[in-house]
Amino acid sequence: MAQATIGDSEFDRDTALTPRGPGVHDAALPAGWTIGGAVNGGFLLALAARGLAAELPHPDPFTVTAHYLSVSRPGPAVVRTQTVRTGRALSTGQASLLQYDEDGAEVERIRVLATYGDLGALSDDVRTTAKPPAVPPYEHCLGKEHDDGSHPLSEIARRLDIRLDPATAGWAVGSPSGRGEMRGWFGLADGRPMDPFALLLAVDALPPTTFEMGLTGWVPTVELTAHIRCRPAPGPVRIAITTRNLAGGFLEEDAEVWDSEDRLVAQSRQLAAAPRR
Amino acid sequence: MAQATIGDSEFDRDTALTPRGPGVHDAALPAGWTIGGAVNGGFLLALAARGLAAELPHPDPFTVTAHYLSVSRPGPAVVRTQTVRTGRALSTGQASLLQYDEDGAEVERIRVLATYGDLGALSDDVRTTAKPPAVPPYEHCLGKEHDDGSHPLSEIARRLDIRLDPATAGWAVGSPSGRGEMRGWFGLADGRPMDPFALLLAVDALPPTTFEMGLTGWVPTVELTAHIRCRPAPGPVRIAITTRNLAGGFLEEDAEVWDSEDRLVAQSRQLAAAPRR
Repeated sequence: MAQATIGDSEFDRDTALTPRGPGVHDAALPAGWTIGGAVNGGFLLALAARGLAAELPHPDPFTVTAHYLSVSRPGPAVVRTQTVRTGRALSTGQASLLQYDEDGAEVERIRVLATYGDLGALSDDVRTTAKPPAVPPYEHCLGKEHDDGSHPLSEIARRLDIRLDPATAGWAVGSPSGRGEMRGWFGLADGRPMDPFALLLAVDALPPTTFEMGLTGWVPTVELTAHIRCRPAPGPVRIAITTRNLAGGFLEEDAEVWDSEDRLVAQSRQLAAAPRR
Repeated sequence: MAQATIGDSEFDRDTALTPRGPGVHDAALPAGWTIGGAVNGGFLLALAARGLAAELPHPDPFTVTAHYLSVSRPGPAVVRTQTVRTGRALSTGQASLLQYDEDGAEVERIRVLATYGDLGALSDDVRTTAKPPAVPPYEHCLGKEHDDGSHPLSEIARRLDIRLDPATAGWAVGSPSGRGEMRGWFGLADGRPMDPFALLLAVDALPPTTFEMGLTGWVPTVELTAHIRCRPAPGPVRIAITTRNLAGGFLEEDAEVWDSEDRLVAQSRQLAAAPRR
């Protein structure tokens, strides 16, 4: 299969928006990015972020926060955007992704607040002490070819190329590590290169850390904030997610994303509801 | 001095809002919470969060994001709030804090998106692996009595009881550690106990980590997200802030706040602009 390009890939087609009027875009949430019938939260974030890229004078999401209000299903949707402030280097906007109830009334799925800038205009100044996570080489991680077929792949899993660190994949064979960690490689299955919008998909794409803590079940995101720190270099990225505090029925998932040139390209944190056991 | 109580303290009086109408509250930003003439970002966050507490059916901020749009100055302000969604356990709202230009037109200072709940209703379930930061005992940390008087105290510093870990206070005597770390104890100077609103103040109250990285100058917050995870026990809290990635003119500050019972009561991350040198 020829490698898909940015702008001509399944991810780009499925996050495409059709302008309806100022600050209003129609969208169609495809069945291809669901898990358990619900559209993936990172996909929704990327789609809303595209709406804001059309609204704001700056191209790249620098910091994006989404609050997840109700479950998104495949079907028609609308993205409503508003400019909050525009400045020379940064601009801020908000977006709502809505769907329709049986009477055609809009129901809000996610509310987004974000500040955009131009990653290409940033200085080369780097004073980082962050070190890439200890993810084994790509070929030593576990991808779809290791799946034993006992669980049907989710729709979104077919569209992603996720290869898990064996040290955080014990849950898949009934031996979770007990640690709140999930690590692996991430790319689009059609080979589309990573960019800031694909990074928004990436930060919510790995299995939840709760799987490795021995908890099964749904981990609904309450809020997710992602910082995109630089444009990723070509090739798949490495993602490391850590949960340190599962308490009172909630947990945080801290993700960092590293590119092939060992740069920290994204940081995210989400607050999620713990599975009820 | 008698110990101030929640509801009857300088912090409470200065964050008090006067209802003007549905979703509209008047406020007065006091000179007492400024540094360099600008009202502190954590104070603004707490004030906006009070507006949302009046708007939403749930009392406690669980996750609060603020985008900082323009510099706030002492004087009149207005907080406009809107309910985004109400649910049984959680509700989401947004708030704008605005001031007035010379013509009386509103100028937005911060835009906030937040989800509230009831910390008192959470389960006692705790499965945390997080460990409290290595902050020396309160009496071994450096407070205002150690100030040599060479720099006038900022207005906000008089209202806080911050005692820095000597290991992260080298900047004050011209010997920064070079590490992106800041740690210390935090309380209100009048002894008012900590609560979720004071925690929103706390997460942006310590000196910036850039001071210990040898950089001087203003570090304007672009966006700050705080998760409040439980009600703090009585007594001052410990705060540890870490910066791992200063790159492209921006940095993150990750803060965690621990109470006297060794519980992780708040986590926050902000994206800030690095000082220009």
